[in-house]
Amino acid sequence: MTDIAFIGLGIMGAPMARNLVRAGFTVTGYDLAAAAVARLAEDGGKAAGSVADAVDGAEIVITMLPADPHVEAVVLGEGGVFETIKPGTLFIDFSTIKPETSQKVAEAGAAKDVRVLDAPVSGGEAGAVNAVLSIMVGGTQADFDAAKPVFDAVGKVAALVGPNGAGQVVKAANQLVVGGTYALVAEAIVLLEASGVDAHAGLDVLAGGLAASRILELKRESMLARQFQPGFRIDLHHKDMGIVLDAARQAEVSLPFGSQVAALVQAARAQGLGDADHSALLTVVERLSGRGGN
Amino acid sequence: MTDIAFIGLGIMGAPMARNLVRAGFTVTGYDLAAAAVARLAEDGGKAAGSVADAVDGAEIVITMLPADPHVEAVVLGEGGVFETIKPGTLFIDFSTIKPETSQKVAEAGAAKDVRVLDAPVSGGEAGAVNAVLSIMVGGTQADFDAAKPVFDAVGKVAALVGPNGAGQVVKAANQLVVGGTYALVAEAIVLLEASGVDAHAGLDVLAGGLAASRILELKRESMLARQFQPGFRIDLHHKDMGIVLDAARQAEVSLPFGSQVAALVQAARAQGLGDADHSALLTVVERLSGRGGN
Amino acid sequence: MTDIAFIGLGIMGAPMARNLVRAGFTVTGYDLAAAAVARLAEDGGKAAGSVADAVDGAEIVITMLPADPHVEAVVLGEGGVFETIKPGTLFIDFSTIKPETSQKVAEAGAAKDVRVLDAPVSGGEAGAVNAVLSIMVGGTQADFDAAKPVFDAVGKVAALVGPNGAGQVVKAANQLVVGGTYALVAEAIVLLEASGVDAHAGLDVLAGGLAASRILELKRESMLARQFQPGFRIDLHHKDMGIVLDAARQAEVSLPFGSQVAALVQAARAQGLGDADHSALLTVVERLSGRGGN
Amino acid sequence: MTDIAFIGLGIMGAPMARNLVRAGFTVTGYDLAAAAVARLAEDGGKAAGSVADAVDGAEIVITMLPADPHVEAVVLGEGGVFETIKPGTLFIDFSTIKPETSQKVAEAGAAKDVRVLDAPVSGGEAGAVNAVLSIMVGGTQADFDAAKPVFDAVGKVAALVGPNGAGQVVKAANQLVVGGTYALVAEAIVLLEASGVDAHAGLDVLAGGLAASRILELKRESMLARQFQPGFRIDLHHKDMGIVLDAARQAEVSLPFGSQVAALVQAARAQGLGDADHSALLTVVERLSGRGGN
Repeated sequence: MTDIAFIGLGIMGAPMARNLVRAGFTVTGYDLAAAAVARLAEDGGKAAGSVADAVDGAEIVITMLPADPHVEAVVLGEGGVFETIKPGTLFIDFSTIKPETSQKVAEAGAAKDVRVLDAPVSGGEAGAVNAVLSIMVGGTQADFDAAKPVFDAVGKVAALVGPNGAGQVVKAANQLVVGGTYALVAEAIVLLEASGVDAHAGLDVLAGGLAASRILELKRESMLARQFQPGFRIDLHHKDMGIVLDAARQAEVSLPFGSQVAALVQAARAQGLGDADHSALLTVVERLSGRGGN
Repeated sequence: MTDIAFIGLGIMGAPMARNLVRAGFTVTGYDLAAAAVARLAEDGGKAAGSVADAVDGAEIVITMLPADPHVEAVVLGEGGVFETIKPGTLFIDFSTIKPETSQKVAEAGAAKDVRVLDAPVSGGEAGAVNAVLSIMVGGTQADFDAAKPVFDAVGKVAALVGPNGAGQVVKAANQLVVGGTYALVAEAIVLLEASGVDAHAGLDVLAGGLAASRILELKRESMLARQFQPGFRIDLHHKDMGIVLDAARQAEVSLPFGSQVAALVQAARAQGLGDADHSALLTVVERLSGRGGN
Repeated sequence: MTDIAFIGLGIMGAPMARNLVRAGFTVTGYDLAAAAVARLAEDGGKAAGSVADAVDGAEIVITMLPADPHVEAVVLGEGGVFETIKPGTLFIDFSTIKPETSQKVAEAGAAKDVRVLDAPVSGGEAGAVNAVLSIMVGGTQADFDAAKPVFDAVGKVAALVGPNGAGQVVKAANQLVVGGTYALVAEAIVLLEASGVDAHAGLDVLAGGLAASRILELKRESMLARQFQPGFRIDLHHKDMGIVLDAARQAEVSLPFGSQVAALVQAARAQGLGDADHSALLTVVERLSGRGGN
Repeated sequence: MTDIAFIGLGIMGAPMARNLVRAGFTVTGYDLAAAAVARLAEDGGKAAGSVADAVDGAEIVITMLPADPHVEAVVLGEGGVFETIKPGTLFIDFSTIKPETSQKVAEAGAAKDVRVLDAPVSGGEAGAVNAVLSIMVGGTQADFDAAKPVFDAVGKVAALVGPNGAGQVVKAANQLVVGGTYALVAEAIVLLEASGVDAHAGLDVLAGGLAASRILELKRESMLARQFQPGFRIDLHHKDMGIVLDAARQAEVSLPFGSQVAALVQAARAQGLGDADHSALLTVVERLSGRGGN
């Protein structure tokens, strides 16, 4: 069965690697945290002692890392993936990073005949654990097809959306819409409650018409109850909104709403809500009107 | 069968009155446009020559009017509904107006022992024609129950959401979320297209995850094709955003996103898009970045 | 000497009327608060018992009222100024109200051959006391010239800026720029302080270059010291931002920054800062970032 | 007289280096463009063939570079300033870059006993030519004092505003306030003109009261005449707004107005106004309302 190197065994990477083991792949894992590597070995994977060790002999190399600097270091840096990877290898980066960093990685890969895909995911820890992630892929059709068995093992849907970097752009667009929808629902809640309206009944109406959204469907009751256990943390959404603004700058487009969403998420973080679920944007919106949120 | 006076036989009112006739009510209609009254009569209703004429003998009086000044004039003004309406009559105002105007109407009604409901609708002309409107109702449970047969004849869902004015607040919240969602989807489209991403594939991914919304589901293809036949016109959404801002002011809450949505819809109107579908907010968003929209 | 009727002897009106007395005019005052009327009489004016009483025999009628509904009632309503005012009289409304209300008053005046000016002022209570108000005037050149002695008695500068309503539009533009400048200076302060920069030194630099403004000049030290005694209250600025949005709606223009300023001032009010100076917008801006403002 | 190395002889650097020559310094210049180096030599400076050549023997090393990547390469990179600079040398970076890049440079300098100041300037090309720049300095008092003769030779005012990076933060705050003030004045103009008000007279009133600003004073007539010759180009302001957002992110503060200014400047650039003066934000604001700007 195909040999996979999996680098980055954090909250997302660990269950993804485990799901690849379950799907029958031979998975050699590496992480700075030795305990994470040991856990993968217990689950049927192999332990590597370094990036080079993991990459050695792999037909597919996968990274799942927190942010741009980690990708630059682990993939492009000294002792990194691209130092020892063999020509023809398929390299899949599941990290959510700037489109331009993905493009830089793809260019560096092309120079070594490595086949590169950017493949950020959505669905959070639960999606990773249950192998139901949505995967947004940038690269060529041929490489996408070659990666399909991997995507099938960790996700529910995978879509090729354009050339390298395109996966990141779609992920950015997704986070923009998600963050903005929370902001809108939050303002609706504040307006309803401050007006003395039955907010449960009101949101039920909204959820039944053109205002309907997955967020209204899944989150309105927890938002009305001010239950903000993550889920997806504000701090991560903050990182992602930084990517949205970078992507807009690179694409030379103006996103006034995206910019306001970024400012709102930044405010949430600055108000100490970094570890709360992103639906806690409601708290920022209500504090702005001197309500609740204590 | 119950005698109903129906005042305001425009794009929305005409089909609603017709559906009441079909449901077996005796409907006496009045409108400034004599042709509209004549059409109702052809459809089995009765023609009235004035507001007073229509109201005379009615057990339920209904109004469906364009905006606050019309309601103030037709209901509260000289020769208006409340001059001749009898104590105990049920009065349903389907107009979308400011919450405070609905409250004023309710207070004036209470002084005459009239039972008042504000009951703005969503669903547009198609919803009115097909009797599948969503109805947001402010008033008492008893009056809501009494009005239920009327709501059943013109709509699919009716929800009592609070005291008088609450129906308008929920409608306002709905329009805020709808307008804002269009803005977010528009920014996503502009970002995707400007980045060289396959926007169809990208929006498909968004529509399958936490970014999903009724608008993404129903409108993404028409937006990508720049087809903006109404549907619901920008000019009407502009009127509604004015109500959102009034409602926020009355409730003493700050709605930064709602305020930006209002500014965006105003821009669409100022750019000559008043008669286009509200999804044409995309045009404003792309023109801002110097793209398309010519 | 010219006989003037002065209606509305509040915080602004009282010192303005007194300054007219000092300038030699015969001033007959009226206010709902009898004490205010008595004080004017002590200061050399005459006391009237009603609007009609004040207007009777006046060559110039002046109003200085809190908001649109007061102007509509006192000028256009039953027992109001326009019931008894004589043709040819000069009517000056110093109130800050919507441009469209001023236009409505002007139309009603024209129907009675009354010469109408809208003349909102800036400069606050101190400006009224010291007769150094800035006066923005809408109307004809001839009427402006006729009113010049009045303006000279209460203000430092008076400018004819266009037809009826134009005075209100300029006042609205003024309040938009003032509120927005406070917001910008507030964000600069928060950025400097949170970055560990010497904010006094930093603002000194800003005040010496292209970022310079009257607000930076007069208010930076009190803002850095968080001293927010009015000056001009948030509640009044909130009223004025409502006029800005109405004026934009009437002119069919989109003002994204004006809309955000309005939302920010609304937030200040909702957070209990209604009686603080408008420079207290700083408190809202810093609370948004989880800083100070307790 | 003190030996200075001056690296980066562009639009700003060239006249600054020339002014240092005029003030009596021995200035050895380097730039990738040989013609710029030759011009400095004609003006009494010395020509260097490389960064190392310029730095060799200099008591003060100065850089004036376009953006962060240039500073990272020229100062920290291979063959860069810090490879050959001697301990104890004073290093002044006049470039406008991110605070965190300035801090990184200062840390690298400290490791080599180099005394580092970040000293971004405002005043534009005219300010550089006429030696009247405003200089915002981050570093220690002792190093600031040592650099004073240099600052006196190129600027009118220099202020020490905090530790390393603080100069950049103040510059960022300056650009935020300047960009925002243009936006506010632009909205005022659009509101006045669309309302049929005499905008010249209206802005005169604003310029005489609390709304007054250097921008209203210097730029209102050119803005009303739609004359947008730079001055300071939109493209540069766009770069600077990127720094503002980075600085806010580093300081963990939310700047909703700053974010909107950044989006507006981005829109100007996207609409093809990159080479126009930053007062051309007016064009974006009026196009938003379907006015002018063709």
